[in-house]
Amino acid sequence: MKPRILELREGILKKNDELARALRERFARAGVRVVNLVSSPGSGKTLLLEATLKALAERGKRVAALTGDLQTDNDARRLARSGAPVRQISTGGTCHLEADMIERHLEGWSLEELDFLFIENVGNLVCTSSYDLGESLRAVLLSTTEGEDKPAKYPPLFSSADVFVLTKLDLAEAAEFDRAAALQALRDLRPQAPVFETSAKRGLGLEPWIDFLCNADA
Amino acid sequence: MKPRILELREGILKKNDELARALRERFARAGVRVVNLVSSPGSGKTLLLEATLKALAERGKRVAALTGDLQTDNDARRLARSGAPVRQISTGGTCHLEADMIERHLEGWSLEELDFLFIENVGNLVCTSSYDLGESLRAVLLSTTEGEDKPAKYPPLFSSADVFVLTKLDLAEAAEFDRAAALQALRDLRPQAPVFETSAKRGLGLEPWIDFLCNADA
Repeated sequence: MKPRILELREGILKKNDELARALRERFARAGVRVVNLVSSPGSGKTLLLEATLKALAERGKRVAALTGDLQTDNDARRLARSGAPVRQISTGGTCHLEADMIERHLEGWSLEELDFLFIENVGNLVCTSSYDLGESLRAVLLSTTEGEDKPAKYPPLFSSADVFVLTKLDLAEAAEFDRAAALQALRDLRPQAPVFETSAKRGLGLEPWIDFLCNADA
Repeated sequence: MKPRILELREGILKKNDELARALRERFARAGVRVVNLVSSPGSGKTLLLEATLKALAERGKRVAALTGDLQTDNDARRLARSGAPVRQISTGGTCHLEADMIERHLEGWSLEELDFLFIENVGNLVCTSSYDLGESLRAVLLSTTEGEDKPAKYPPLFSSADVFVLTKLDLAEAAEFDRAAALQALRDLRPQAPVFETSAKRGLGLEPWIDFLCNADA
């Protein structure tokens, strides 16, 4: 049975890659920067995104977001408070977003009128790594409460990051977070990827992250 | 393509269920209680398990553990400090444990000489829910730092729990954890399942959890 399922899986990934490539071209033509946010459940993706949408809007950037979840629309409701256009992608139980879900949920949006499109993936450190969504940047979050060993334990995802965001900096001390070990673990996997250290809840460390987004190539 | 992959997936799950049933009978015959620990990455499964193995051994129970990970053997090395027999299951990138991985890693162990076998699953709130491992108890962990909305956002896994363990109680205040909302969210999904509130790091709340394990039916 294994060979057949592997073959099918490869077929699905190949199809996803092709669609992602087409999306990437479409995003580039429209001049929209697309950021795929990936992490464990509960690492603070939604809160970081909420703060990011707000800060970018304050700088005059036109932003929108797609947020994936198994079934609730909690995140879309939270993110909508930022005033940005937000759509919920309900995966119906699927453990990650795929390029065709992104494509379908863009319908009716004029990409040319956006500077940034954020995609909040399903909370999952494994399955999300294999699915290219056509993003320009893959941002992998690691919260200080999860433990500095996570990059070494989930290398496929962390190795696929363009940028890292450490979250929940305000809990670092209480959680006895070993910052040096965490930074080393990230550097071991992606020596060139920048690392931003933030607490969206306390508004810490967001400026450099926002600067980075504004200066990153589309 | 979807129908074929769904069909294959159903076939795999059915095979897994059959093997899990056989394992469950084997565990029952041997009189060993098997606990499957499932949660997000970084919720504290390994630390809880370390404390649990130690506490059960102090009560004269014979314990062993299997611990699943994509590729490192960090957890097996940590758990081995408890003195209990521990084996690492490297899933080679697979996002969950399956019954056949359990069966293969039991080889050479005499189940009759065990009171408890713990299985630490891969950190994943989605894919682990579909795979029965033949366990007598499925314990789903939720850390206070992840947020009380996780049960509602990942209902398939939380609904499949026999027992819940709240972890990282020591960080609850700093994380502004809404305990009442979390308990309600768990109760909404599994009204009968007991909930234990713990901090393995600080040794809090472990007694009732250990009592529960000792009194639970095999």
